[in-house]
Amino acid sequence: MAQQKATNITWHEGSVTREERERLLGQKGVTLWMTGLSASGKSTIAVVLEQMLLHRKKHAYRLDGDNIRHGLNKNLGFSAEDRAENIRRVGEVAKLFTDAGVIAITSFISPYKKDRDAVRANLKPGEFIEVYVKVSLEAAEKRDPKGLYKKARAGQLNGFTGIDDPYEAPEKPEVVIDTETMKPEVAAERLLRHLEECGYLAA
Amino acid sequence: MAQQKATNITWHEGSVTREERERLLGQKGVTLWMTGLSASGKSTIAVVLEQMLLHRKKHAYRLDGDNIRHGLNKNLGFSAEDRAENIRRVGEVAKLFTDAGVIAITSFISPYKKDRDAVRANLKPGEFIEVYVKVSLEAAEKRDPKGLYKKARAGQLNGFTGIDDPYEAPEKPEVVIDTETMKPEVAAERLLRHLEECGYLAA
Repeated sequence: MAQQKATNITWHEGSVTREERERLLGQKGVTLWMTGLSASGKSTIAVVLEQMLLHRKKHAYRLDGDNIRHGLNKNLGFSAEDRAENIRRVGEVAKLFTDAGVIAITSFISPYKKDRDAVRANLKPGEFIEVYVKVSLEAAEKRDPKGLYKKARAGQLNGFTGIDDPYEAPEKPEVVIDTETMKPEVAAERLLRHLEECGYLAA
Repeated sequence: MAQQKATNITWHEGSVTREERERLLGQKGVTLWMTGLSASGKSTIAVVLEQMLLHRKKHAYRLDGDNIRHGLNKNLGFSAEDRAENIRRVGEVAKLFTDAGVIAITSFISPYKKDRDAVRANLKPGEFIEVYVKVSLEAAEKRDPKGLYKKARAGQLNGFTGIDDPYEAPEKPEVVIDTETMKPEVAAERLLRHLEECGYLAA
């Protein structure tokens, strides 16, 4: 036990607890894991949800290809092994943010059930919300904002999910968002409501 | 541009900015990087500092061997290559927390200047505070709370920093803490003061 000179506060041994951090933030840490085909709308929904949460004074942070593939996972490629390691690392980082009391929103295709289930198993019950961002291959291919499906069809991209690599849809996701019938802002509102109703927006 | 049905708020394209998150939290994101020999006192100081920050309603999170070596970096060993990758990944995770507006406190021996400098270079100026937790090898070996120095001297541990692997002291650390003359709570107070004086505890 150590005493702070100035104020006589007693600093306890051991770290600040998860509960103390959550009380400070007025929310519970959780990982909101978006999975779906390329162009399904994962990132768009994540961006809007993050804004809605900020507006509610909640602390969220997005993990996506932009800040992971160029940083933590820049030494990984697209082999089956590297894809699994990519998702494993994202899962571990999301777990740290969750432990820090943050609402971690991940948007990765994460096509394999096995990899997603490993992330779920690594978190405590209630800390992992799997969001299936559902779209037909036809609709995703029609959107194709980055021209990736076109390239994959032309044989310029190998192992592209939906074209020459499988997408394994979640069997029991906590939330399903069909982006052929639901706009991003409506989808984000639905996720916000889910977080609220399940108690994540209060400590 | 999308309209939220209920309140007519306009959600902008692009993500929530760093500044918006920092205003919400009332602080600036930063990485406080503690480096020093095993038993120098890094973790003890980190634990007390985290408590002091929480007491000030600031959001800090510690990254250390406990939550990194058993999680994100559990597939790394202690070869020179793996040690470098260990520090690289910790640096990338600290960067994400910093970007999230959190005060990330890392406590790893991180013995090589090159690895620490790479973490610094990967962050923006002012986002990396190198804290040299200084202790003589003699004093650290005398403390030896986990019996690691004893094992290393007995040849049961290889490549142990200070014994048969070098510790490269920082040349220009932002803060030096000499734990032979300063108690952990005083050291933590000094770091808290540094954070305050340099403007990190306000948005």
